[in-house]
Amino acid sequence: MKIEVWSDFVCPFCYIGKHRLENALAQFPHKDQTNIEWRSFELDPNAPVYSGLRIEDILAKKYGISIEQAKQANQGVAAQAAELGLLFDFEKMKPTNSFDAHRLAKYAKTQNRDAVLSEKLFKAHFTEGRDIGDRKTLSALAESAGLDRTEAEKVLQDQKAFADDVRKDEALARQYGITGVPFFLFNSKYAVSGAQPPETFRSALETAWQEEAASPAFQDLSTEKDVTCADGSCVIPEK
Amino acid sequence: MKIEVWSDFVCPFCYIGKHRLENALAQFPHKDQTNIEWRSFELDPNAPVYSGLRIEDILAKKYGISIEQAKQANQGVAAQAAELGLLFDFEKMKPTNSFDAHRLAKYAKTQNRDAVLSEKLFKAHFTEGRDIGDRKTLSALAESAGLDRTEAEKVLQDQKAFADDVRKDEALARQYGITGVPFFLFNSKYAVSGAQPPETFRSALETAWQEEAASPAFQDLSTEKDVTCADGSCVIPEK
Repeated sequence: MKIEVWSDFVCPFCYIGKHRLENALAQFPHKDQTNIEWRSFELDPNAPVYSGLRIEDILAKKYGISIEQAKQANQGVAAQAAELGLLFDFEKMKPTNSFDAHRLAKYAKTQNRDAVLSEKLFKAHFTEGRDIGDRKTLSALAESAGLDRTEAEKVLQDQKAFADDVRKDEALARQYGITGVPFFLFNSKYAVSGAQPPETFRSALETAWQEEAASPAFQDLSTEKDVTCADGSCVIPEK
Repeated sequence: MKIEVWSDFVCPFCYIGKHRLENALAQFPHKDQTNIEWRSFELDPNAPVYSGLRIEDILAKKYGISIEQAKQANQGVAAQAAELGLLFDFEKMKPTNSFDAHRLAKYAKTQNRDAVLSEKLFKAHFTEGRDIGDRKTLSALAESAGLDRTEAEKVLQDQKAFADDVRKDEALARQYGITGVPFFLFNSKYAVSGAQPPETFRSALETAWQEEAASPAFQDLSTEKDVTCADGSCVIPEK
């Protein structure tokens, strides 16, 4: 089963949704036959790198609410995170641009380390108060995820490196009409939008699995026989 | 539309099928909205690298036929290739192991050069009589496909490099019950097995396209609202 997950490392519901999906997967009997594709999405491609502004200042300005109201909203999100054992430290949080983090995750994917790095990026932003728009922070995170630090630094310095991979995921999101994240797509067919309750993830896994098991993998449109190769040779001469 | 193509660079029907698909795509009005994923398949993982044996010797031994009969069978395949403007030179052909070629194609994919390299690998084997199991030949082909020759040589020297990517494609083929190549899969749903006639490819493209256009991209299983992030923020406080 293919599971595609669009998310942004600075998106609290993405971190929460990721853990709800992972919890559902941990209890899913066919977990070994699932494969997650982590896809990039930037909530705000124009977001500046960390400038010293606090998250509640940004929210208050954006929504025309008081700092106190913004803090209360954040506390509600932190409470949801806490239920999953995740500490969201909104006091220390450094709002920033996530494009380089996404590029780095795409590099990590070529080394099969993107799942590990993704978790570290979320944790750095939401729990540890680190600026994941800062290249030194990013290369340290890359190293802690088992990547070669020098290679990671090269990727980070070259703004074009893996940029197309990030853009492709975002283009696919647009094509699918995805405007918010997290967004989960099971077998290109069943969607779960947002940090839904654990039950919704369990149900989506089960639904996609049942269908996959019940239906033939595909419909054969071939019209002729004996035009394939097998067993080391394609030419099957008549004796 | 996603088009997955399993093939082996030493498989004549794969080269023919590839060109039939590409011809059908050239006339397909929605070509710009298609994306081909080139997947690895080894017809004979245990095939030795080129040992001096000619293809007709191998076929004659394998099928218990005469050298003359093997040559006739090859002529039939060459005639099909010729209709597509492809020269199959069975006299010069060097039967070999294709694992390194597949690994190299996977490296090329990380540089968006796998489509270009694949065509060069097929042509080298079927038309130019080059040994695509030979690492010097492969690194020269990599360079001609726009890849960094030194990087390509590194990949070739490290037997583990990109080996998992090749194995994953092959595991997926087994999972789908694919035993022969070429194998074409449109939108994970419609299959074309072998070097089918051009009409079959046109029809498969049309069928997959019609369905994609008619049906919604996916079925939404979400149960709650307001748990996604958009527009640079996830927290949407009540005013």
